[in-house]
Amino acid sequence: MMDFAGTPGTATAFVLRILQSFFAVASITFMVTTTSFYQVTAFCFLVASMGLQVLWSSGLAILDGYALATKKVIHNTGLVGLFVVGDWVTATLSLAAAASSSGITVLYFNDLAGCNFGEECQKLQLAAGLAFLTWITIGISSVIMLWILAAG
Amino acid sequence: MMDFAGTPGTATAFVLRILQSFFAVASITFMVTTTSFYQVTAFCFLVASMGLQVLWSSGLAILDGYALATKKVIHNTGLVGLFVVGDWVTATLSLAAAASSSGITVLYFNDLAGCNFGEECQKLQLAAGLAFLTWITIGISSVIMLWILAAG
Repeated sequence: MMDFAGTPGTATAFVLRILQSFFAVASITFMVTTTSFYQVTAFCFLVASMGLQVLWSSGLAILDGYALATKKVIHNTGLVGLFVVGDWVTATLSLAAAASSSGITVLYFNDLAGCNFGEECQKLQLAAGLAFLTWITIGISSVIMLWILAAG
Repeated sequence: MMDFAGTPGTATAFVLRILQSFFAVASITFMVTTTSFYQVTAFCFLVASMGLQVLWSSGLAILDGYALATKKVIHNTGLVGLFVVGDWVTATLSLAAAASSSGITVLYFNDLAGCNFGEECQKLQLAAGLAFLTWITIGISSVIMLWILAAG
């Protein structure tokens, strides 16, 4: 299979996975420290989606770290096929969660007469913004994975 | 380049483009026939995103139809590269628009005490649902395009 920056077992892939996990954890942290997030379905979906992202990305970060440390090649077709499915599912969920949370945040901030959740409004914005950053980093991984699977 | 159902100039690709245009037009129709959509940023974004999708998909439907009628092969690397960029941009925008509109629709229907827009609530739901159908069909096209570009 092709081998370039970002393929499984490279330092770039490892950094991408760490960034994904970091952004997702930060997004969850900002969201769950608000007192009223559980009243809005989209915010609960964001927490669930980011939680799944943390599990997936941190698992692959460990795998990439192991491959880097032992200098093993871990991208055979079967494994990359699995990575492609997982990456695309989590990337789609991350974008959907980020977009739905942002839609509601913008509704509160711009469309209605300001956000009435007090100090928590900034946390909601930050959580949605971090979800978008998570999506950008997992999106890069997803495209690389599909590319090396298709290129064979 | 590879040639299978769904690659540019095939009947499957043509049907996919027609479906994308149809769902996007239907989504716009339901949204703009509500009287209050312009007050919500996410609903305006849905109309803009679906509008872009209609332009892109109907343009490619015409191209696919022309290729089918004249039996020309239209998938060279440069053209497919262009299709990949356009497909991925519009697919991402469609998913974001569908998710943000759905987030607000669910907020009104489930989280708050029911939707207070009267008869228009069903239209909002239909518009969001049709945007998801648009995204599924453009998503299929996007994956096929990236695959044939990567497979060369």
